[in-house]
Amino acid sequence: MTPPSGKKAFYIPTLAVIGVGLIGGSLARALKRGRHVGRVVGAGRSLASLQKARRLGVIDVMSASPAQAAQGADVVVVATPVGATEYILQEIAPALGETAVVTDVGSVKSMVCEMARDALGAAVRRFVPGHPVAGKEHSGVDASHAELFVGHRVALTPLRETDEDARKTVRRMWRAAGARVTTMPAAEHDRVLALTSHLPHVLAYAMVELFADTTRGGVLSGLGGVENTAPALYGDMAAGGFYDFTRTASSDPEMWRDICVTNRAQILRQLQAFSVRTERIAQLISDGDLHALERLFTAARDTRAKVGERRPARPRPTLLFPPKSAS
Amino acid sequence: MTPPSGKKAFYIPTLAVIGVGLIGGSLARALKRGRHVGRVVGAGRSLASLQKARRLGVIDVMSASPAQAAQGADVVVVATPVGATEYILQEIAPALGETAVVTDVGSVKSMVCEMARDALGAAVRRFVPGHPVAGKEHSGVDASHAELFVGHRVALTPLRETDEDARKTVRRMWRAAGARVTTMPAAEHDRVLALTSHLPHVLAYAMVELFADTTRGGVLSGLGGVENTAPALYGDMAAGGFYDFTRTASSDPEMWRDICVTNRAQILRQLQAFSVRTERIAQLISDGDLHALERLFTAARDTRAKVGERRPARPRPTLLFPPKSAS
Repeated sequence: MTPPSGKKAFYIPTLAVIGVGLIGGSLARALKRGRHVGRVVGAGRSLASLQKARRLGVIDVMSASPAQAAQGADVVVVATPVGATEYILQEIAPALGETAVVTDVGSVKSMVCEMARDALGAAVRRFVPGHPVAGKEHSGVDASHAELFVGHRVALTPLRETDEDARKTVRRMWRAAGARVTTMPAAEHDRVLALTSHLPHVLAYAMVELFADTTRGGVLSGLGGVENTAPALYGDMAAGGFYDFTRTASSDPEMWRDICVTNRAQILRQLQAFSVRTERIAQLISDGDLHALERLFTAARDTRAKVGERRPARPRPTLLFPPKSAS
Repeated sequence: MTPPSGKKAFYIPTLAVIGVGLIGGSLARALKRGRHVGRVVGAGRSLASLQKARRLGVIDVMSASPAQAAQGADVVVVATPVGATEYILQEIAPALGETAVVTDVGSVKSMVCEMARDALGAAVRRFVPGHPVAGKEHSGVDASHAELFVGHRVALTPLRETDEDARKTVRRMWRAAGARVTTMPAAEHDRVLALTSHLPHVLAYAMVELFADTTRGGVLSGLGGVENTAPALYGDMAAGGFYDFTRTASSDPEMWRDICVTNRAQILRQLQAFSVRTERIAQLISDGDLHALERLFTAARDTRAKVGERRPARPRPTLLFPPKSAS
């Protein structure tokens, strides 16, 4: 594959993707479709997944290890759960070329910055911590697609040591995949995401656990005269809110386990703040305070609508990536 | 409009809808489309809404009051927030014909049963409490459509006094609208719904309130160097889970205020049970217990998938309501 001729288009001759799942796979697909990459080398824990990725055309070459994948790569993307990041950075450090740029896609950034300093040594200057914020309730390379990032935000949280050139390369890469890129401090990222993403996930998991405990305990199974229809009934009743509310609980457990522990302080702080709100609402319900409840619900509905308005419309993907006739 | 000829199809000569919003409007539309109703008479608080409903062809006649609408109606559907139900039942009681069947659509049923006994007197025998469980984050007659109930569950919670004929009429009406109908005790309904619907709504409202407080308090507004992009940023970051999680917080505040207060005991019980779960997860996060967190998240993901499987697939609406060529 050759770069588009006659243009100063963004182009990565060799891209290494460590962890070819939903995120790594979708990035590779997007860059391939836009002809922004020559060769994609993949590495990962599961041979079966790597083989599938190659069959699907997401990667061109399978590597036996992260280090082998990193060797000769112009850009290395670490797309594993956050808990594996430090190990992978340690593994690839000796194999990295002098100009190789390294980035990650983890949902937590402060801890990743610390890991990178420890693991990469001087090469930390070419490390650009990143986080694409896109819906992720599905996982695995099967779910990957070239348009996953179109119109979505990618946060870059460079370290003090990060080279400006490296940051620009990663920014261009994500823009080539259709994303909007913002640079912000890692600590700020982790505070915002604890509220907008990590807390909703934790609460959704808790809600499903409560649902499972309650149905198992028979509270819902003793419906007089309708025992036979009860299982279907739970599912139908879940249309009343449970489904929307718990969509995030379908996310990858290992990824979320790692997020919870690596962004521990911020998540615990938000959980605490959340429980103050639910206790206040419980008090209003207990008091039967119709006016206060209606005020609160109305304000919440309006806030959500406003946040929705602020959210930039996703551009039509087909306009971003017109099929190119030139090779 | 005449009933379909030559068949013993279900047919309501005159249907009164008190409260022509999303639910009442969608029911009227479904019955009209299937030619299961002759004339639809609408009543409601807002003249503008009623006029809109008539313009949209959802109702045929506007009534000045619930009592006037009920007069001469074969079936009366009370489709207001639960808090208005008792008043409306009191108003229509003297106007009801001897064979008129009355039903409601409230999300809480025990309290509605009490209200009906108090308000309807002997006519309570023709009252069938009902609850269509369908997604309702939109509201108003504008959002109503004939297919809202297709494949969704409707729970009927007849009183001891309820006539079997009346229950059958209401069951046939909802089936004609494409719904699956289940009969269950009111207390059981309120326990199930507190978990599958009321709790998720309350938590979503609490989440949005926390989001609003946090952004207002400036915690998210001090992003170094990116102040100008901050508002758009909140919206983008909300793609990380906040949007899915809070979809239910767009629901009608008055409706949910009423639900919270009329199903108070069950909701408070579920809020308490939920906070036990979140406290346990907070402890696991605080301990950094990766194994326990992964186990819990995996179990939750599997539970949600199982509930999803149990949920009957929604039949294709176009197959349920083939356009009829005969008049």
